[in-house]
Order: sequence, then structure tokens, then C-alpha cells
Amino acid sequence: MTSFTVRNPHFETRVRESFAKQTVMGLLGASLQRVEPGSVSIVLPARDDLCQQDGYFHAGVSTTIADSAAGYAALSLFDAQTEVLSTEFKVNLLAPANGDRLRAVSKVLKPGRTLTVVEADVFADSGDTSVRVLKFLGTMIAIRS
Amino acid sequence: MTSFTVRNPHFETRVRESFAKQTVMGLLGASLQRVEPGSVSIVLPARDDLCQQDGYFHAGVSTTIADSAAGYAALSLFDAQTEVLSTEFKVNLLAPANGDRLRAVSKVLKPGRTLTVVEADVFADSGDTSVRVLKFLGTMIAIRS
Amino acid sequence: MTSFTVRNPHFETRVRESFAKQTVMGLLGASLQRVEPGSVSIVLPARDDLCQQDGYFHAGVSTTIADSAAGYAALSLFDAQTEVLSTEFKVNLLAPANGDRLRAVSKVLKPGRTLTVVEADVFADSGDTSVRVLKFLGTMIAIRS
Amino acid sequence: MTSFTVRNPHFETRVRESFAKQTVMGLLGASLQRVEPGSVSIVLPARDDLCQQDGYFHAGVSTTIADSAAGYAALSLFDAQTEVLSTEFKVNLLAPANGDRLRAVSKVLKPGRTLTVVEADVFADSGDTSVRVLKFLGTMIAIRS
Repeated sequence: MTSFTVRNPHFETRVRESFAKQTVMGLLGASLQRVEPGSVSIVLPARDDLCQQDGYFHAGVSTTIADSAAGYAALSLFDAQTEVLSTEFKVNLLAPANGDRLRAVSKVLKPGRTLTVVEADVFADSGDTSVRVLKFLGTMIAIRS
Repeated sequence: MTSFTVRNPHFETRVRESFAKQTVMGLLGASLQRVEPGSVSIVLPARDDLCQQDGYFHAGVSTTIADSAAGYAALSLFDAQTEVLSTEFKVNLLAPANGDRLRAVSKVLKPGRTLTVVEADVFADSGDTSVRVLKFLGTMIAIRS
Repeated sequence: MTSFTVRNPHFETRVRESFAKQTVMGLLGASLQRVEPGSVSIVLPARDDLCQQDGYFHAGVSTTIADSAAGYAALSLFDAQTEVLSTEFKVNLLAPANGDRLRAVSKVLKPGRTLTVVEADVFADSGDTSVRVLKFLGTMIAIRS
Repeated sequence: MTSFTVRNPHFETRVRESFAKQTVMGLLGASLQRVEPGSVSIVLPARDDLCQQDGYFHAGVSTTIADSAAGYAALSLFDAQTEVLSTEFKVNLLAPANGDRLRAVSKVLKPGRTLTVVEADVFADSGDTSVRVLKFLGTMIAIRS
């Protein structure tokens, strides 16, 4: 297990306040679950208006919650004055995103003063089954004001 | 200029019908514009509920229209029995996605029997100015039923 | 732990014979270590002619062994008639690749009939220390003759 | 056509001197060709010891010259005190890398104070024919001493 240095003791409040400003999360119906140093989870229940042409979650929707989970994993390790932005990410789509809800779980791979590399998995959960549908690997940048 | 082989003379109708089934496009307010062999454009007007924490378009939103534009660029070259799915993509976020509307423009880089590689650009347009905010490079797979 | 289906009981011999044909591995001085179902490791000792401008291993060198490790992780799960090719990969460079040797360790994330998604890590090892310098996420395709 | 701001009038000399320090370029037999603001080309003749298992150029070799071409495209736009490192890149392999020589051509997509996004193509050239075999999209970081 990696352990991370926490620079802002109020990191959880800060992440939750920032998430609440991401209006697209409200539009999609996503909610922030667990917030830990270097790791965040976001859940998104299935809905008829989140789909691609076959009725699965659109890959962009899965990616949207993965990207927010990744950004907040990075932000959880920043000091209180530093902001976060995504600079790039790649996703591999591992299975059709079909289930009762999507769950994105992020983890910081490498914290850094300027760049933080984060991975995330998105799972499609239904009852007792959970299928990993997306793998995300991206870079978050620290913006100092 | 690359020229592509069109296997389905009704490719434009097919792309437009499939796009109409992508319910998330309705949720976001995206509309399909130009449909040509190997290239598609999608436009998404700004709205208060598409944002990340700073009021810009969320990167996941820009990515969602880039991914659909890429998928339909590939589908435009498929025969009438073949379906398309995204298998992976990477995006680089080049500038804050801030403008009156986003515009995704895709182009097939390399068609193939199984895999089609597509690039796309997303622009933030406001009045006369247009800023490229995202570069997309991904792989679409042909699914034969 | 994931367990994988082995379709070729002679997978290890097959991987080792194919690796022996990768002439660039000889040029670089890389050797194949562990070969297991869905996972392979490759080691590359430091040498003065593998460097970028600062004397670290060139990122392309680290990527080369990551890519081979990823390809052979996929091949280890294929039947005896199926070949493997890389179709795409992304790497994040996490730290300067500076050490006595590089060690690439791959793991299949998602096997598939056509596409297999593989991740790999490259570590720079020196004495007792080991630093992860590269994260790889890519797609291998099964070629049936 | 994009035009770039040149901060170091001696950019070409600087790029060529740095390339000469990349010892792996000598090992592979790669040579730096054109150096322009924001764009560089590198050529690598075919040789028996640069191959994967089928006798094509190894994807890692194609990627190595693409990465150097991308890094130097970024460096060509930096001031004389700033160094360059790759932070991440993704490649799509478009065709078997089979020909008399590989040629990597890079182009800066978006220069920046900290991060510069670069794309590159690698072509396999033989006689009059030229096939694009690889597309590269990556991020270079400016290191100020």
C-alpha cells in the first residue's frame, strides 16, 4: 500500500465542495461517495438518458465520472491554495457498460509538485455482480494561484 | 486529402439514426451537424449544467462528443450490417473549454476491417473566435452480427 | 487475483521462442525472465548506449521492454495458432529512469477473443531500491492465420 | 499553418547537440534530419537487429524515434535555459512497420509555459512508397533550472 502526504487537513471538505460545483454531476445524477487521501469514488445510477445507441452507458459518461474521480484523488493531496485540472487521459473500454449503476474508483499512482498521475477503474454493478468496464490512466496538473 | 471507400450508400441516414438513439446527446443538448465519409461534426451549446468546478465545460463532456464524432466517422465507412464500438481513446486537453459552444470534428486516420483509428478535435467557438481545446486519438472496432 | 484460461499448454516455450526472434531485445541487452499465464517480466541492465540526453534510460527503451512484456502477457493466453500484435499503448513516465537495470512487469487486465488489454509497470532497480518509472496501458490484437 | 514563437535563435544547434547526446540514437542508427520551429524529423534505416518476431521494426523502436522527434519539436520552442522531458505519450500502430527506413515527423500542437502537446507520425518508406505506420500524441514538460 502506498501512503500519501496530506497537505490540507480539510481535504475531504474541499473535495466535496468542489464536486458540488461540477454542475454536470448533477445533470448526470452522479454522487461522490468515499473521499480518502489519493482515492475517491463516484457512483452513477443507470438512467434512460445516459446511453449510447445500444442502451449501454455512453463511454463518455463512464469517462466523465472517471475523470472527476481522478481529479479529486489528486486534489485530495494538494495544499489548500492549489487547484487541479486534467491535462490528458486515456481510457480502455473493457466491457459494455451495462448495469444498475457505474462506480468509478480512482487512485493516485504518482503524486508530484506539478503533475500527478492517477489511475481509475469504472465498474458496472448490478446486485452482487461487478464488472470492470473501463480503465483510466491520466495526468492532473496543480495550478497555483 | 485521403479518400475513403463507402460501403453503405445510406451511411448518412444510418449515422443520423444511430445518433438519435444516443440518449445522452439529448441530455447534453448535442446535435449532429455534417456527416461525410470518414468525418463527422457535432455541436454542443454552452449551458450551466455541463460544467466542472470553474464553470468551463467538463472535460468529460468535451470527450463525450469527441467520442461520438469518432465512432460515427468510423461507422460512416462500414457496411450496413456492421456496428461500431469504441475500444480505447486518449485525449489531451489543450485549453480551458470556455465558449458559446463546443464543436467536435472527427477524421478517420486509418480504416480497417476490424479496427479503425480516428482522430478528433474539439473547438470552443465564441463569435468569430475558435480555440482548439481537445485532441482525441482512439480506436473503434467493427462488430459484425 | 485474476485467474486466466490457458489455451496452449506450451505457452512458456512459445513465448520464449518468439522473444528470441525479437532481434532488438538482443541489441538492447534485454532478457526474458518470468513467464506466467497473463504476466511476463523482462530485465534490461543499464548501458551507456541506451540513454537520452541526461544519461537516463531513453523513454523509448523503457517503452520497448514494456511493450514486449505486454505482448507476451497476451500471447501466453492465446492458442498455439494465434499470433499477437500491439495495436496501441499509452505510457506515463513517472520518474527519471535511472538505475542499474530496468524491469518490466506486465499483467493482462482483460483477455478477449480479438483484443486483450494489458497493463505493465517498469521499475528502475539499484541494489535494494526499486522505483516505478513507467506505467503502460495498451491493447494487443489476436491474429489468426 | 501554425506559426510559433522562437525564444532561442540557436534552437537548431541546441537540438542537434542534445540529439547527439542521446546515445540510443547511435545504437539504433537514427539520424536527425530537418529541425524547424515546432517540428523535427528523424530517419532510421532498416537493420536486422531492430525487429520484432515477424521481422518488422519493433513498435518500441518506432516509438523511440517518435518520442525523440516530439521532444525536440518542443525543445525547439524553449528558451536556452529550459530543458525538456517527456511526461506521457500514446501511440496507435496503423500498419506493420516494414520498409527500407522509418521516418518520424513531429509537430507541436499546443505550446505552453509548462506543458507542450506534440503529435508525430512515423512513416515506413521504401523507394517511392510511404506508409504511415504510427501516430503519436504526447506531452512534453519544460524543466527550468
